[in-house]
Amino acid sequence: MPVVGMVGGGQLARMTAAAAIGLGATFRVLSESENESAALVTHDVTVGSHRSLSDVSAFAAQCDVITFDHEHVPGPILAKLESDGVLVRPGGGALKYTQDKLAMRERLSALGVPCPRFAPVASLADVAAFAGGEWPVVVKAVSGGYDGKGVWICESTEEVEEVLALGIPLMAEEFVPFRRELAALVARSPSGQGAAYPIVQTVQVDGICREVIAPAPGLSQDTAVEAEAMALKIAAELGVTGLLAVELFETSRGGLLVNELAMRPHNSGHWTIEGARTSQFEQHLRAVLDLPLGSCAPPEGTFTVMANLLGGTDPDVFDRYIHVMAADPAVKVHFYGKEVRLGRKIGHVTIVGGPEDDVAEVRDRARRAASYLRWGTEDGD
Amino acid sequence: MPVVGMVGGGQLARMTAAAAIGLGATFRVLSESENESAALVTHDVTVGSHRSLSDVSAFAAQCDVITFDHEHVPGPILAKLESDGVLVRPGGGALKYTQDKLAMRERLSALGVPCPRFAPVASLADVAAFAGGEWPVVVKAVSGGYDGKGVWICESTEEVEEVLALGIPLMAEEFVPFRRELAALVARSPSGQGAAYPIVQTVQVDGICREVIAPAPGLSQDTAVEAEAMALKIAAELGVTGLLAVELFETSRGGLLVNELAMRPHNSGHWTIEGARTSQFEQHLRAVLDLPLGSCAPPEGTFTVMANLLGGTDPDVFDRYIHVMAADPAVKVHFYGKEVRLGRKIGHVTIVGGPEDDVAEVRDRARRAASYLRWGTEDGD
Repeated sequence: MPVVGMVGGGQLARMTAAAAIGLGATFRVLSESENESAALVTHDVTVGSHRSLSDVSAFAAQCDVITFDHEHVPGPILAKLESDGVLVRPGGGALKYTQDKLAMRERLSALGVPCPRFAPVASLADVAAFAGGEWPVVVKAVSGGYDGKGVWICESTEEVEEVLALGIPLMAEEFVPFRRELAALVARSPSGQGAAYPIVQTVQVDGICREVIAPAPGLSQDTAVEAEAMALKIAAELGVTGLLAVELFETSRGGLLVNELAMRPHNSGHWTIEGARTSQFEQHLRAVLDLPLGSCAPPEGTFTVMANLLGGTDPDVFDRYIHVMAADPAVKVHFYGKEVRLGRKIGHVTIVGGPEDDVAEVRDRARRAASYLRWGTEDGD
Repeated sequence: MPVVGMVGGGQLARMTAAAAIGLGATFRVLSESENESAALVTHDVTVGSHRSLSDVSAFAAQCDVITFDHEHVPGPILAKLESDGVLVRPGGGALKYTQDKLAMRERLSALGVPCPRFAPVASLADVAAFAGGEWPVVVKAVSGGYDGKGVWICESTEEVEEVLALGIPLMAEEFVPFRRELAALVARSPSGQGAAYPIVQTVQVDGICREVIAPAPGLSQDTAVEAEAMALKIAAELGVTGLLAVELFETSRGGLLVNELAMRPHNSGHWTIEGARTSQFEQHLRAVLDLPLGSCAPPEGTFTVMANLLGGTDPDVFDRYIHVMAADPAVKVHFYGKEVRLGRKIGHVTIVGGPEDDVAEVRDRARRAASYLRWGTEDGD
């Protein structure tokens, strides 16, 4: 069987490891320590840094193809691996658009993909000129942000000054008064096959995804098709192999704007483990192995709600399984084996609903389960 | 998180390992070699023999609870572990009924559970008396059989003589001219909670399970309820913790007779990975951890077909994935990482059908996928 190596030992690698067991692919992980989420459950673990060329090269030499749990492998390392003949999927030419948000905006705009208005900024004058008197303005780190980190919604020049003081490359974007957030998830294989999951609604709190509803309730068929086509186009034009997640704003007038891109399994796709015929983790493996892609469809008549589990103050989550499982035999609890820290993503819960179920009621059940696991009460957040 | 140890490194342990990743339980395996199916994918592997008290005891000392991938741990070892305070689930008192078929028949009959007529036999005269002139007669090894091994359908006294020549403890059973074979799969937790999966139809060829259809097509509601209740009763009366699979004959008059018992995840339950809200592997973990059991229900309106993949003559199964996945994006391929040997169970394929799908057509798709993976043609067996 072919050997897939994943760089990064977080929960995405952990869930990919479970998918690899089913598919029969051999799976290795390059993890920063023995205690990372994926390193705890994977048979073949290499401890090393994704920022070290020698570590990544030595890891790649044990694999038929390498892929990623995150976007943080430096571009020069990716370029060296590719010039050495390593199969890197997605390749550095695609990954750079997840590492450089300005390059991503410029490329998408050139492709005619709708994005928020943006500009590079280096000074208060730049931001003030971009704002043109209309606040707030979104200021973003050009690289390195995630889960709301590296994004500042500035209401005034004073707030901009604080961000400028960080001394990192920045860009400005218009503040989009969106109706809600959506996400498109597609896969693309090296042979060029594409597959699109149903468009989902995501609910973020403080920049962190808290809930996903699949498919997005009440989304028009036209908008859904437009979002899927947009994601497939981006994947093809940027040469993505593997998964591409496109975070979208649905604007107050019903239009779509691209917010962020990710080229890996994505939080907005965890629902697919139970809710779609092919999980995003299996799909990513199939894509990077250049196998035909699997059906993205949910079983007919079903919908799925996923709620993230964030860390609370009690380190013992398992102790709370009993209550949650007894209260709702349909809830699926996923725990990533990570140390519990306040606000950290440590797991998620999923409920698949059928034709008789009400979306609002299933959302409430998922929220209550996640709350209980976090706080020991169903009425937390 | 609690540590579950599974004795035995076959595909059942392998698939349990994948379920443990999702649930967040720590999973260890005691495997006879580094190359067994589960040992290839599990992080915590101990190499040792399930027939060695010191190996099993040392393994158990690293675990909060131990359970089994097979029924072959000798009774005295189980008894010693339990007297030492190890949590053994299922316990030796239950497992003995899978290790001694005569004891199983006697116990079930005492409980009023319908079984084929049976008797211990030690000589040709015993078998002839049991037959009373009616052939064939089924002669079985009292212990140690699986997948058709240890079962002989004898048409004559000459055939019985060959079996008697083996010099092992035997029993005779009436030959049941069944309409079809069914299987009931239930879980029971140490707290006494029970949960029942839908009754499935199994199709065996030469004693090996080839196909499972869930739920069993055209089974009357009354018979389904009777079979589920029978399995739950057996689990409770025998003190089973974890899964209990009850292989059943549906007789030509529509009655039920118990054929075999297994107290672990079972081939007749592989369909639950994709086809039920809680897979049998997660359910077994929940039961042995004394967690509340999960919903056994399939998503509404769905049915599932599973076809076993047996080894053919080509060692490279992966090479055939492309054809199968391209031909049918809904098929899920499972490969156990085992060396391919002719007729050996090396994987399975699963297809979930919806309200629009036809059972016969989905069975044909599953059969074709398994045939192609085995022989390189869709028209093999």
